[in-house]
Amino acid sequence: MTPSEPTPSEPTPTDPTIADLQLLLQSVLPADAAAMSRARERQAQLTKPAGALGDLEDLGVRLAGVFGSERPHPRGVAVMVAAGDHGVAQNALAQGGVSAYPPEVTPAMVANFLADTPAGPGGAAVNALARTVGARVYVMDAGVNAELPDHPALIRAAVRRGSRDLSAQAAMTPGETLTLILAGAALARRAVADGADLLIPGEMGIGNTTPAAAITARLLGLDPAAVTGRGTGVDDARLAHKVGVIRTALARTPTTNPLEVLAEFGGFEIAAMLGMMLQAAAQRRAVILDGFVEGSAALVGVALAPQLRDFLFPAGECAEVGHAAQLSHLSLKPMFHLNLRLGEGTGGVLAAPLLLGAAATLREMRTFEEAGVPGG
Amino acid sequence: MTPSEPTPSEPTPTDPTIADLQLLLQSVLPADAAAMSRARERQAQLTKPAGALGDLEDLGVRLAGVFGSERPHPRGVAVMVAAGDHGVAQNALAQGGVSAYPPEVTPAMVANFLADTPAGPGGAAVNALARTVGARVYVMDAGVNAELPDHPALIRAAVRRGSRDLSAQAAMTPGETLTLILAGAALARRAVADGADLLIPGEMGIGNTTPAAAITARLLGLDPAAVTGRGTGVDDARLAHKVGVIRTALARTPTTNPLEVLAEFGGFEIAAMLGMMLQAAAQRRAVILDGFVEGSAALVGVALAPQLRDFLFPAGECAEVGHAAQLSHLSLKPMFHLNLRLGEGTGGVLAAPLLLGAAATLREMRTFEEAGVPGG
Repeated sequence: MTPSEPTPSEPTPTDPTIADLQLLLQSVLPADAAAMSRARERQAQLTKPAGALGDLEDLGVRLAGVFGSERPHPRGVAVMVAAGDHGVAQNALAQGGVSAYPPEVTPAMVANFLADTPAGPGGAAVNALARTVGARVYVMDAGVNAELPDHPALIRAAVRRGSRDLSAQAAMTPGETLTLILAGAALARRAVADGADLLIPGEMGIGNTTPAAAITARLLGLDPAAVTGRGTGVDDARLAHKVGVIRTALARTPTTNPLEVLAEFGGFEIAAMLGMMLQAAAQRRAVILDGFVEGSAALVGVALAPQLRDFLFPAGECAEVGHAAQLSHLSLKPMFHLNLRLGEGTGGVLAAPLLLGAAATLREMRTFEEAGVPGG
Repeated sequence: MTPSEPTPSEPTPTDPTIADLQLLLQSVLPADAAAMSRARERQAQLTKPAGALGDLEDLGVRLAGVFGSERPHPRGVAVMVAAGDHGVAQNALAQGGVSAYPPEVTPAMVANFLADTPAGPGGAAVNALARTVGARVYVMDAGVNAELPDHPALIRAAVRRGSRDLSAQAAMTPGETLTLILAGAALARRAVADGADLLIPGEMGIGNTTPAAAITARLLGLDPAAVTGRGTGVDDARLAHKVGVIRTALARTPTTNPLEVLAEFGGFEIAAMLGMMLQAAAQRRAVILDGFVEGSAALVGVALAPQLRDFLFPAGECAEVGHAAQLSHLSLKPMFHLNLRLGEGTGGVLAAPLLLGAAATLREMRTFEEAGVPGG
């Protein structure tokens, strides 16, 4: 594969997935500038000193652009956790691994997301957090390296038990990549049909900060060392090994075509999250962007459809070193700095109430005139 | 008055308010260290990499200390908005004022907090935000300079229509100060009885960053210029005037006795918020600390009863310049940086879901052993 322009420039009408992706990309339109302008005007008349709600005011205006109203009213919150395994995590084990955890953790955590617990469904952090905000949790097998037991709440989208080792070959074929993007889009469509206005792509996949760092390094033109972090907590030696693995992967191919970058470096859950983001934007819903792995999907997405940016709301700045570079490239500011580095969409769920609050102030506050407050 | 030790060292048994305050101060006990220790142990066994939930883990452990359980379960959220006026805001008008808004805004905003709106009760930012998290809003007249119309939801606690001008004389008498502290305590007791576990003192009072800065400067031994900000948005000239007013006030009295500092500089809503904080801590509930004015009440509170600190959870770092100095003195870290500078308890309401989330992860997540996840 050679570098080329974003989006498959020659659609293949015989391949429905390429056509579907093109349709999806074309349906991502910019935010509603007129609604944003009306929101800014309204913001200036509300009963508070100008700018006193700080960043919340900007978030409100951006939500007005997403929902096409100066009084945006997002309601349902959905977190969609895509799980996948990574050949690199398996292969690197002999050299000390790229993760602090063995790959077996991925299927075990999928079971944990689905488990019955005294508190309700799911015993992982994302489940506990989702219950506090009434968010619905969807769990997708995007390519876990295990036979997962049947569960009514498990969405099966895997085409392969884990990606190939990105340091040796392309992690995914172009066809697998498209399939997973569209599977993610289908799940987001379902979440919207179930009432979600704020959609949070989340992930679980031992080793997946390695492909995320490779994607980020390539799409931002940065050295791997600048965007490779400790993931679940590797030590200095394994961090150096991880950077080396990513360097090897990057040296395999010079492509900067976003879809090719995604296929080359993987993984399945990143492709699925990309599809979720595009579909949410196409349906004019807000996407809460959790951590570094989600950020790598967003970089691919914005390269394919620049308007996607208008629909992305970064939650917190995560502790992973490359996250700040992603957000800086996207010109987006995170809402908090809680040093999260868990993934699963946990930061996204924590950010949902802040967005609901930003919309509520813009929507429900009275104006100086309505309230008869002097000085407006 | 001369400098002396914290807490009234000679209780006056004939004065019931002094006795009540002493009782209140004595009932603020430290957080439950054993529960915190059990929470730390449990935190280490939960299905996530060690420390992956970042600051949320520390918040969870602190909540365990407040609620005396390694599985803390806070439920109800209450925001108590105390409103008061300030003689300094009235008197300084001739010289350009200390606020960007006229004092008439205080009663108008109280009416706004109580107004019927299509979205529900209250047309201010705090009302809109409170609705998004199901928080109950209490509104207290702590000393507004106006005849407020009767309203079933208005708690009347005013003993005077606004404080005296702190640059000319003591803003409040010792008796007034005690009365308002105990009125705040009574409101917090009521909120707890109504089901609140997370209590958010909030304020409204044109000019009240002036007494807050005076209190902060005196209790932290800082120059007024280092802790005086733009409040609702004064320009450079008024900021300089504001610093001058505070300097004059500080020069009137050398006292560092916390209760005397509060009485000397005011105001009524700060005294009420102090009472709310002490009562919440005495009943072992968490206090979410909003902005700079709340922070000045907290400084007085921690000077009177150092254990109060264990119960304080700062929301965001607000845009007011002295806030960072307050939090640094309290050794507390804010949860977000959204550049809020509105007051009303707005930041506190935004922070409530983060605390509920911190408690939920500690309470509801399964352990590695329970989930059968390897690597724990």
